[in-house]
Amino acid sequence: MRSMLLAAIGVLGSGAAPAPKLLTPTDIVASAPASAWTAIPARDLLVMDLKNGKRVVIQLAPDFAPVHVANIRALANAGYWAGATIYRVQDNYVTQWGNNDSGKPWPKGVVAKPPAEYWRALKGLAITPLGSPDAYAPGAGFAAGWPLGYSTKGEWATLAHCYGAVGVGRGLDPDTGTGGELYAVNGQATRHMDRNLAIVGRVIEGMDQLSALPRGTEALGFYKDPAAGVPIATIRLASGIAAAGRPAFEVMDTASPSFANYLRVRANRNDDFYRHPAGGVDLCGVQVPVRRKG
Amino acid sequence: MRSMLLAAIGVLGSGAAPAPKLLTPTDIVASAPASAWTAIPARDLLVMDLKNGKRVVIQLAPDFAPVHVANIRALANAGYWAGATIYRVQDNYVTQWGNNDSGKPWPKGVVAKPPAEYWRALKGLAITPLGSPDAYAPGAGFAAGWPLGYSTKGEWATLAHCYGAVGVGRGLDPDTGTGGELYAVNGQATRHMDRNLAIVGRVIEGMDQLSALPRGTEALGFYKDPAAGVPIATIRLASGIAAAGRPAFEVMDTASPSFANYLRVRANRNDDFYRHPAGGVDLCGVQVPVRRKG
Repeated sequence: MRSMLLAAIGVLGSGAAPAPKLLTPTDIVASAPASAWTAIPARDLLVMDLKNGKRVVIQLAPDFAPVHVANIRALANAGYWAGATIYRVQDNYVTQWGNNDSGKPWPKGVVAKPPAEYWRALKGLAITPLGSPDAYAPGAGFAAGWPLGYSTKGEWATLAHCYGAVGVGRGLDPDTGTGGELYAVNGQATRHMDRNLAIVGRVIEGMDQLSALPRGTEALGFYKDPAAGVPIATIRLASGIAAAGRPAFEVMDTASPSFANYLRVRANRNDDFYRHPAGGVDLCGVQVPVRRKG
Repeated sequence: MRSMLLAAIGVLGSGAAPAPKLLTPTDIVASAPASAWTAIPARDLLVMDLKNGKRVVIQLAPDFAPVHVANIRALANAGYWAGATIYRVQDNYVTQWGNNDSGKPWPKGVVAKPPAEYWRALKGLAITPLGSPDAYAPGAGFAAGWPLGYSTKGEWATLAHCYGAVGVGRGLDPDTGTGGELYAVNGQATRHMDRNLAIVGRVIEGMDQLSALPRGTEALGFYKDPAAGVPIATIRLASGIAAAGRPAFEVMDTASPSFANYLRVRANRNDDFYRHPAGGVDLCGVQVPVRRKG
């Protein structure tokens, strides 16, 4: 078998000496120096506690959807999601939660019709290019810890709908999403949504609590019986939780040498299990490392 | 808001008249003529019934991994999986099942060390190109109903590890996977596995039964307590099920005009919900339509 693979490599025209064995992505994360990590501010952490005792933590993205994120902070601070549920789980698509169709009034400070923050200008973002082609955008890469598609001329940069990305549910009008109804991508990246919905963050802990739920049987994965929704206890900002119990996280700096190495290995797996490195990786095949702090 | 979007389109330099509204992917599937569908042979359907009463149906891919598929047929016919369980569920990675580490002997007719059927020659496959760039292979497209990456010179064509793809678990040696332990991709495509493991098929019904399971807490998503595994009642070929109860499916012909249209729409969503078609789509963002027959 080994001989077959070596023969195949010959066919592919590689005459170079074999590349040295790379570390695994896990090895690189474990050995990254403290300087490769950036603390996530507590006001950028949205903590969703389910009534079943499980926790989901979302990192907000104020640099990409500032009005929506301000709304979400206001909603959390006002306790808007008291009584909310997870009411939609569509397989290989999204898990969605909020006060669906409740008609609950917006708390003070919430912008009921925010602008369509589906992209921003590329200017001001320090991009680490993916180094592989992308099907959805002329450019793809990472900035400030986030995966992005962008126009190479710079007119737009959009957060990518990768697994765990959190976006704002809306109706047919592009400006009907306020932030009260949120979804998370629970399967293959839904990148066709990029630049069509506002991404406000990503799940950084507990994503399995959203992806391992029973799928809804109605159209678009809504639960047939609203009472069958998964009850949410609270959705709070970490900055609103007493210091002793406040969760804290760090994200790998996507401009760091550690991340460059991580990206290289993701695209060229050649640790013992792998015989044929791809030489490329999808934007959503690279999960930016996040870890608990302290 | 609308004006902002139109302004943005102007910036992007499109001076052409707006494209006519396209159908949705669902519309195209619903209106495809009978000639666009191909029946899946009953011997290519692996039917896994869980003890909880739920069913998972897998379409086998004998044209891509003939020795492994022959093994799987022999294992099914011999009742090899009696007492098997789903013992590994790793979030955003794979769900895996079989008789893990049981040391159960291989039934007669099983090739204990099959060749590494990780790719085949491109020759003989009628490719419908994806039409968008791919990060993992020089070429990407569809043939005989399957998503593929391939070398543009034709040396290799590999089934792609998209959501629902079923592969053969193996150890570190590339030839240790016999077919007794199978996995299904339960999140973002794991395309770095392409050409490193043997794909033998894909889940065409009941994938949510594998993706909505609780995640295992041990390394790689193994369940801590083997007794907590999800018990499997039977794994049979549809051809071994009495005609009255035999499930039957059809797959859309990926060389048909209907599929070409479906592919175009997947890459250019502009139905009412979407304001900004991507103009491209990922190989694993296009699920080849499959439906129950009759």
